[in-house]
Order: sequence, then C-alpha cells, then structure tokens
Amino acid sequence: MSEPSPAEFRSLVEGIFGDIPFVREIGLRLHEFDLESQTLSAAFDLRPQLIGNHFQNILHGGVIATALDSVGGLTAMVAAYHRMGGAIDWQEKVQRLTRLGTVDMRVDYLKPGRGQHFVCSGSILRVGNKLVVTRMELHNDSEELISTGTATFLY
Amino acid sequence: MSEPSPAEFRSLVEGIFGDIPFVREIGLRLHEFDLESQTLSAAFDLRPQLIGNHFQNILHGGVIATALDSVGGLTAMVAAYHRMGGAIDWQEKVQRLTRLGTVDMRVDYLKPGRGQHFVCSGSILRVGNKLVVTRMELHNDSEELISTGTATFLY
Amino acid sequence: MSEPSPAEFRSLVEGIFGDIPFVREIGLRLHEFDLESQTLSAAFDLRPQLIGNHFQNILHGGVIATALDSVGGLTAMVAAYHRMGGAIDWQEKVQRLTRLGTVDMRVDYLKPGRGQHFVCSGSILRVGNKLVVTRMELHNDSEELISTGTATFLY
Amino acid sequence: MSEPSPAEFRSLVEGIFGDIPFVREIGLRLHEFDLESQTLSAAFDLRPQLIGNHFQNILHGGVIATALDSVGGLTAMVAAYHRMGGAIDWQEKVQRLTRLGTVDMRVDYLKPGRGQHFVCSGSILRVGNKLVVTRMELHNDSEELISTGTATFLY
Repeated sequence: MSEPSPAEFRSLVEGIFGDIPFVREIGLRLHEFDLESQTLSAAFDLRPQLIGNHFQNILHGGVIATALDSVGGLTAMVAAYHRMGGAIDWQEKVQRLTRLGTVDMRVDYLKPGRGQHFVCSGSILRVGNKLVVTRMELHNDSEELISTGTATFLY
Repeated sequence: MSEPSPAEFRSLVEGIFGDIPFVREIGLRLHEFDLESQTLSAAFDLRPQLIGNHFQNILHGGVIATALDSVGGLTAMVAAYHRMGGAIDWQEKVQRLTRLGTVDMRVDYLKPGRGQHFVCSGSILRVGNKLVVTRMELHNDSEELISTGTATFLY
Repeated sequence: MSEPSPAEFRSLVEGIFGDIPFVREIGLRLHEFDLESQTLSAAFDLRPQLIGNHFQNILHGGVIATALDSVGGLTAMVAAYHRMGGAIDWQEKVQRLTRLGTVDMRVDYLKPGRGQHFVCSGSILRVGNKLVVTRMELHNDSEELISTGTATFLY
Repeated sequence: MSEPSPAEFRSLVEGIFGDIPFVREIGLRLHEFDLESQTLSAAFDLRPQLIGNHFQNILHGGVIATALDSVGGLTAMVAAYHRMGGAIDWQEKVQRLTRLGTVDMRVDYLKPGRGQHFVCSGSILRVGNKLVVTRMELHNDSEELISTGTATFLY
C-alpha cells in the first residue's frame, strides 16, 4: 500500500474518528479539516443525555472533556503524521498513529455549557518525535468560549 | 424543612448523583459513601459504547474524565456541606451545593483502561469557604491504577 | 484616599510587583502594561544562577514557572480590579487584591529555555467575582515560544 | 566505566542535584534518598529572598513550583534508571538521564507557604520506556500539606 493522497488521508482520519464508539455516543463529528492550515474541529448538538445539571440545562463537564480529548487526539494524530515525514514506511506510520494515546490533560471550565450546538477546535503547541502537545477550545452557538484545554499525547 | 439526618443526607446525595443524565449515560452509580471517613466512590461497567479504541478494547479517555469529574464533584459537595456547618440555613446550603461547579481538572492517563468493572474514588486536598480541591483515582477489577486526577471546584 | 487615576494605578501595580522579593531574585521587571488592551508582560535576562542544566545552558523549569505565575497573578490582579468596578470602596478593593493568590497552575515546557532575554505575557480567560483564570506565554529573544501555562487565581 | 554500586549511584545523583545552579539558589538539598522504597525528598529553609508576599511572610508560588519540579525530576531520574535495567549500557543510561526534562506540571497551592523549614517529597505514578509521571508534596515544619503537584517527564 502506497502513501495516501491528501484526500485519502482525510477520509482515513474521518473514518478512524467516526469509528470510535464513545465519539459516536457523544455525537461528535468532524467539522473542519484543513491540512494546509492544520485547522481541525468537530461539532456536536445538545441532547438530553449530555446534560450535567438539569436545573440549569448545561453540558456535563465529562462531555466537554470528551470533546476536548477527542479533538486534541485528532489534531495530534495529523501533526504526528506530518512530523514522521517520508523517512518512515506508511504502514509503520499508521501503526504508530493507532497507538497514539493521551498522557495527561487539563480542562478549564470557563462558562456554563449552554447552547444547542457546539464546536471544538484544536491547535498544536509542540510536535516532537515522541510527544505532541495540543490546545483545544470549545465554543457554543453564541460564539462564547465555554472551555479550553491543553493535552499531551504520546505516539 | 429541618437539617437532614446523616441517612437523609446520604439519600439526598444519592438522588442528586443518580439524577444527572450524563452520569446515567455512563452507568456510574454510587458505590461507597462513608461520611465519617469521607470515603466516596462510584462504580461502572464496561459497555461497548464506552470504548475509545476498539482495536485494544479500552475505555475512551472521556469516560475516564467523566468518572473523575463526577466523583470529584460529589466528594467536593459533601466536604462543602460539612464546611458550611450549622451557621448557614439548610435551604441556603442546598442552594449553594446545587451551584457547585468544576473550575478546572487535570487527568493523568497512567495505564490503558482495560477491564470489565471500574471503581473511581475521591478524597479531599483542600476545603475553603469558596473552593474545594479533590484528588481522584480510577482502578480496574485487577486493582490496577488506570488514572488519577486533581480538580478544583467553586461553590 | 480616592480612586487612583490610570497612571496612579499603573505605578501602584508596578510598585507591588517590584516589591515582591522572589520576583526581584529572578530579575523580573514590568515590560508592557496597557490597561486599555489588558496587555501585560514582564521581562528578565539570563543569569548564571537561573540555569537548570549547565550542560545545555538552559533555564530551570522553576524559573519559567515563577515567571508564568508572577505574570499570571499580575494580569489577574488588573482584571479583578476592573471587575470590582465602582460599587466597592477603593480601600476594600486594594485589600482584596493583596489577598489574591494562585489556586493552581499548569505549565507546559515546549522548548528548552535557551536565550539571553525572555518576555512573559499574560491574558485573561475568565473573570468572575471570586476567580480569575489566565493564560501565560514565555518567549525568548528569537521569538520562540518556550512555555505556556494556565492558572486559576482566587481573590 | 562499569555499573555503579547503590552507594555510588546515590552520590552520583546527589552530585547532579547539588550542581544545578537554580536548585542551589533556592537552597534545596537532598534530604531522604532510599532506593529500596523509592523514597526521595529534598529540604530547604525560609530565606528573605524566597518570599512572595511580605505582608503575609509566605513563600512565592515559584519557589514551591521549583521545589516540586526539582524533586519530581529527581524521582523520575531514579525511576527511569531502574526501568532501563541491565540491557542498556551504563554510559548510554547516564546520557539519557541527563536529557530527562519536564514535559508539563500541575501545581495545587493548598495552604499559604508559612514556616521556617520545608520538605518536598516525590513518588511515582507511572514509569514507561519514554515517560515518567510523578506526584510531589510539600510540607512545612508544622506537618501541614502546603502544596501538591503532578508532573510528566520525558527521557
């Protein structure tokens, strides 16, 4: 199997993301995916089972953490893929990417998770040959910044 | 309404916890709840929708973060309740507890979340008149420490 | 004593910052301080006693953490001051600001702390009536991002 | 050069620690070092230049972060050394240890840093073949827990 084209790589990543059971459970789906600018985001909608406080009708902190972790991991995966470059065999690259895991994460809950629709975006702080550090943000449909996070991934 | 007995307080807390939609979604239920020793834990079982990596059959990091956040919040709620003492009216205490929210959390993913059954426990690092800081641990059914976390709560 | 003018407030803050013994020990001094844009930064120079690894001649992680914590605290102080507004007496405001303390902080060490001159800047993520959350960045004289951090302050 | 004896290893580590300029600046010195139980701690005394708030006469948060980072790094170094075992050449082991660096750290400031004498201890949460995660605690001379932290190290 030869190195994929950018379009093939995109559908590969989309496939990996869409196949994660708990990502489906939350209803997270790939939203933006621009390899050039390394802009990545995923979106999801409010549903009753995602509520953490039904007096206030706001998202559970665990839903927010799940979105940040998932988008951070996806962002890290793309960055690690590019970092490995052409020196490593394509099969070995995919192998390393499937082993990519979160080492630690900080989440800051800045505002109550109110809204009907949420977008979570990721960006890169550091890419090494073993570690990737990403920053994530979650906005609601009023463009309010609900939460930010920083995570470290090993691959 | 007068101050509840310890048994009434326990069922109140159990009720609040069991009514959180996303806590039910994960399948988290109160496990230990000893007010004397301030020992608190919640348990849940592996189910297909909680998987993060189906090649490895391990929990999604977001499930782990949800368990840590929920148990941390519960532990903080009990600590804040005791800290408020008798000087504040019972109704006002409950009001303040329902507003308790996570400010920030760090999660460390120490081992892959493998197992059929998981227990998450919480303990107190700091209780002030506004903030509570808790530490959480998640073990699997082989007594392996899967994850630890630290969280700050405002009430 | 009446509410200070912006210029008086600036020299008050500058005085508080410059009087902190450990800030002087590190050699941190106020660099930018624009109340309009809430842009705040402090600068310091490499000196032999700030080294953490003398094989590599790089800053100790504790020096970086000190810079991030100090600049975060200063940024939080200015934000809290504005948040309190005119409703609270000036004396009481100053009292509350002198009690402002760091609750927790995450530091990410992105690149080795190499350079002769460093600038640390702060920005606001959340300002409430009890808590402020700030984000900090440390750059060297080659404009490299050495470190980022997020901290929660109580006032 | 052959593999060192436990006593030689101890004085090697003691030497590395004592030679770090900023560790000397803070006045941190090795306190306990028991390789069997992996118990490690360092101690330091209050001095005027370590003060962060001279109204309250308490340690600067950066001093606390420096102690936690330094003791965490030392604990990680010892754990990494044992983890590498006999399969790797002694020279290469030392090479890898000198490159060990902090990836990220969370510090929780639980109580004001009051006291004349402080002890900071470290313990291991995870040791892999690339990463070590440690937990640190700082106590004062009244046995109060002033601060805790968690840090990730790469070697």
